Amino acid sequence: MKINVMTDILEADNRIAAVNQGTFDQHSILVINLMSSPGSGKTTLLERTAEALRGKLRLGVITGDIETTIDSERLEGFQLPVIQLTTGSPCHLDANMIASALPHLDLNQIDILVIENVGNLVCPAEFKVGEDYKVVMLSIPEGHEKPLKYPLMFRESALLLINKIDLLQYTNFNLEEARRNATKVNPDIEIIEMSCTAGQGIEPWVSWLVERYQRKMGKQRSA
Amino acid sequence: MKINVMTDILEADNRIAAVNQGTFDQHSILVINLMSSPGSGKTTLLERTAEALRGKLRLGVITGDIETTIDSERLEGFQLPVIQLTTGSPCHLDANMIASALPHLDLNQIDILVIENVGNLVCPAEFKVGEDYKVVMLSIPEGHEKPLKYPLMFRESALLLINKIDLLQYTNFNLEEARRNATKVNPDIEIIEMSCTAGQGIEPWVSWLVERYQRKMGKQRSA
Repeated sequence: MKINVMTDILEADNRIAAVNQGTFDQHSILVINLMSSPGSGKTTLLERTAEALRGKLRLGVITGDIETTIDSERLEGFQLPVIQLTTGSPCHLDANMIASALPHLDLNQIDILVIENVGNLVCPAEFKVGEDYKVVMLSIPEGHEKPLKYPLMFRESALLLINKIDLLQYTNFNLEEARRNATKVNPDIEIIEMSCTAGQGIEPWVSWLVERYQRKMGKQRSA
Repeated sequence: MKINVMTDILEADNRIAAVNQGTFDQHSILVINLMSSPGSGKTTLLERTAEALRGKLRLGVITGDIETTIDSERLEGFQLPVIQLTTGSPCHLDANMIASALPHLDLNQIDILVIENVGNLVCPAEFKVGEDYKVVMLSIPEGHEKPLKYPLMFRESALLLINKIDLLQYTNFNLEEARRNATKVNPDIEIIEMSCTAGQGIEPWVSWLVERYQRKMGKQRSA
């Protein structure tokens, strides 16, 4: 008998992800699995999101890194519930890691939970963590062909954030081609252009979050 | 009995890597395993390297991607032996993939073989492919803290190429801190600053390659 180790691992992951999702639903939390290459700007996005959501909805963060607590330290000033997971060596977060973080979060104090995955355009796309939506961030200096080269992550994501738009003029990044490439691998993907450091594009992103939160709560009420 | 699947996979990889290395040594080829995040500039580096090595040493390339042949197409104009490996889903190249590429390369026509790994700061660092040296590229927009967050890749590499130095003025990247972080995880790492698009820093990189090639050939002769 042959066992496909990867299939088995993903099946286990899916089971635990479903349990996580049940827990999140029960606490009326919208969960986003935020993925990108290293250094695309995920943590800066979270800083801007924390500011923009203040007084509207309560944000919580689980941030994953192989080593260091740099990301959670950056978020400390924002008075959010933040859990730092250091994976040691795994190159992605999986459902079981998230399950192990949940007892340390007061889920009654969170409306939107963003799970900031390990910086990696490949492996995180394969693992569900219990999210409602996957969101992928691509930054201008990485190049417009990335959706074609790493299609799974773009195919799995509901939203593409094109970040560092302020660097556009210094690179050969072609915005139209990036949009075309993303839509080619995922015709349903929504796209927002932004610059987290310049504070550009934060408003449509936060509107997207709020709209998805309200949609989920509406569905839960009518169920 | 418990079997550590990862240990087993790495052991198999090491064995095949040793066989590859024997083949490369026999053909007097210096082999570089080039690794970075997606979009750091590996393919542009190879374009510049092909130009700079012309008439000195003969370059060959094996380039790995999950999907697409964009990278090998970019290199087509340079009249090099280029093999494109598309991994389908694995997030790194391993020794067996390289072994399967070797029959398609005329090893007698190559002095320096650069293996351009899948864009990923995590997984490729764990797998030997038969290289003499690992080289990691970090581009300015990715941030100076990356050596601390992805230490294994920087620890394993003999050389760090800091690319896109032309974008330094538009980011908050701190060069000194990047150097400090890299040296912290790997005190022996050499560092070259460059801009492949601006043609800056190509000469010290090519000198490094040539020097390492001559060193290897000297060792082989005296053995």
